[in-house]
Amino acid sequence: MELFQIKVQTTKREEIIDITDKIQDIINHSKFENGLCRIFVPHTTAGITINENADPNVKIDFLDILKKLIPQSSNYRHIEGNSDSHVKASLTGFSQTVIVQNGKMLLGTWQGLWFCEYDGPRSRTVLIALER
Amino acid sequence: MELFQIKVQTTKREEIIDITDKIQDIINHSKFENGLCRIFVPHTTAGITINENADPNVKIDFLDILKKLIPQSSNYRHIEGNSDSHVKASLTGFSQTVIVQNGKMLLGTWQGLWFCEYDGPRSRTVLIALER
Amino acid sequence: MELFQIKVQTTKREEIIDITDKIQDIINHSKFENGLCRIFVPHTTAGITINENADPNVKIDFLDILKKLIPQSSNYRHIEGNSDSHVKASLTGFSQTVIVQNGKMLLGTWQGLWFCEYDGPRSRTVLIALER
Repeated sequence: MELFQIKVQTTKREEIIDITDKIQDIINHSKFENGLCRIFVPHTTAGITINENADPNVKIDFLDILKKLIPQSSNYRHIEGNSDSHVKASLTGFSQTVIVQNGKMLLGTWQGLWFCEYDGPRSRTVLIALER
Repeated sequence: MELFQIKVQTTKREEIIDITDKIQDIINHSKFENGLCRIFVPHTTAGITINENADPNVKIDFLDILKKLIPQSSNYRHIEGNSDSHVKASLTGFSQTVIVQNGKMLLGTWQGLWFCEYDGPRSRTVLIALER
Repeated sequence: MELFQIKVQTTKREEIIDITDKIQDIINHSKFENGLCRIFVPHTTAGITINENADPNVKIDFLDILKKLIPQSSNYRHIEGNSDSHVKASLTGFSQTVIVQNGKMLLGTWQGLWFCEYDGPRSRTVLIALER
C-alpha cells in the first residue's frame, strides 16, 4: 500500500470541489496501473462523494438540498455552530474506493470525485492509498 | 483482483432491486472462497446500499421517505429534472464491500444488497471486484 | 485477512457509541502494524460512521437531526415500527475503512468510530477485518 496526501483549500462555508484530476495525477505519477484507489477525508465536517462533473448546477442543487434538510441554525446543543456540518459530513461519507485499470480510474461517464466542504473556509487534507 | 459486471434493468423512476443472488452467483462461478467482494455503481443517479430483504414493504417505505425528504420538483438549477436523484444517490452511496468466507458473503441475517434506482427506467451496470 | 468480532450492547432506541478504543484494542492484540482495518455492521437498523469524539453534544444533535428528518411514526407500510431505523441505517452506512500505520489508525484529530443504534436496545455485533 502506497500512501499519499493532497491539500484542498476551500473558500466558502459550503463548497464542492471536484478532485478527480488531482487523484488521477497521483495515480499517474506513481505509475499505478491496476488495483484499488482509496480516498479518505480525515475530518468531521467535510466528506467525499461521487457525483456528476458535467453540469456545475448539480453541485449547487446538492448543497441547497442539504441546507434545506439540515439548517445551520436550530436548537442544537453543540455550541460551535456546525452541528449541521457534522451530520452532512456523515451522510456524505468519509471515504470512497475506485477501481484502477490500466492506469485509469474506472469511473462512470458522468462520475467525478467530490470533496464536500460543510464548514469552511478551511485548509483540508485528503489521504490516498493505492493498493496493487 | 478479478473484475466482473452485471446489468440491471430498472422499470420505474424509483425502484429498489435486490441483487444479492446475482452477486452470490458471480462468487460461485468464479470459485471465490475467501476475501472481499466489492460492488460499485458507476452512475450518478443510482446507488447501492444494504438493507432488509425479508419484508418488501421496507423497500417501499425507504423510497417514500426519501421522496418526502427530497422532492422531485423544486427550484432546482439543474434542468434535467433529476437533481433529487443525484442527491439520493450520493446519500445512498456508490459502493459496498462484503467479506466472503468459505464462498458465502458474510451478510447479516436480514441483510440484502439493494440496487437503488432514482432516475429510471434505465439499463444500469454494476461492477464487482473480487480480491483474494 | 484476519477476522474479528466485538459485541456492542445498546441501551436506548437511538444511541451512538464510540467504539474507536475497542477497534484499536483488536489492532493492538493482533500486532497489526500496517494495512487496512475494515469495520462492518451486519444489521439493517444500525450503522457505523465516523465523527467527532470530543464534545458529546455532537452525538445528541446528530440523533436529534435524524429524528426530525425521519420521524418514527408516519404512514409506513412496514408494521414493525422501525421503518425510520432502516432508512437511518442505510444513510449512515454499514461499513468503514481506516488506514493503519505503525499500529495506529490514521484517523483525523477529531475523528472517532461511531456505532449508531437506531432500533435498540439490542445486543449487536461488529465485524472487523484486518488486511496486511
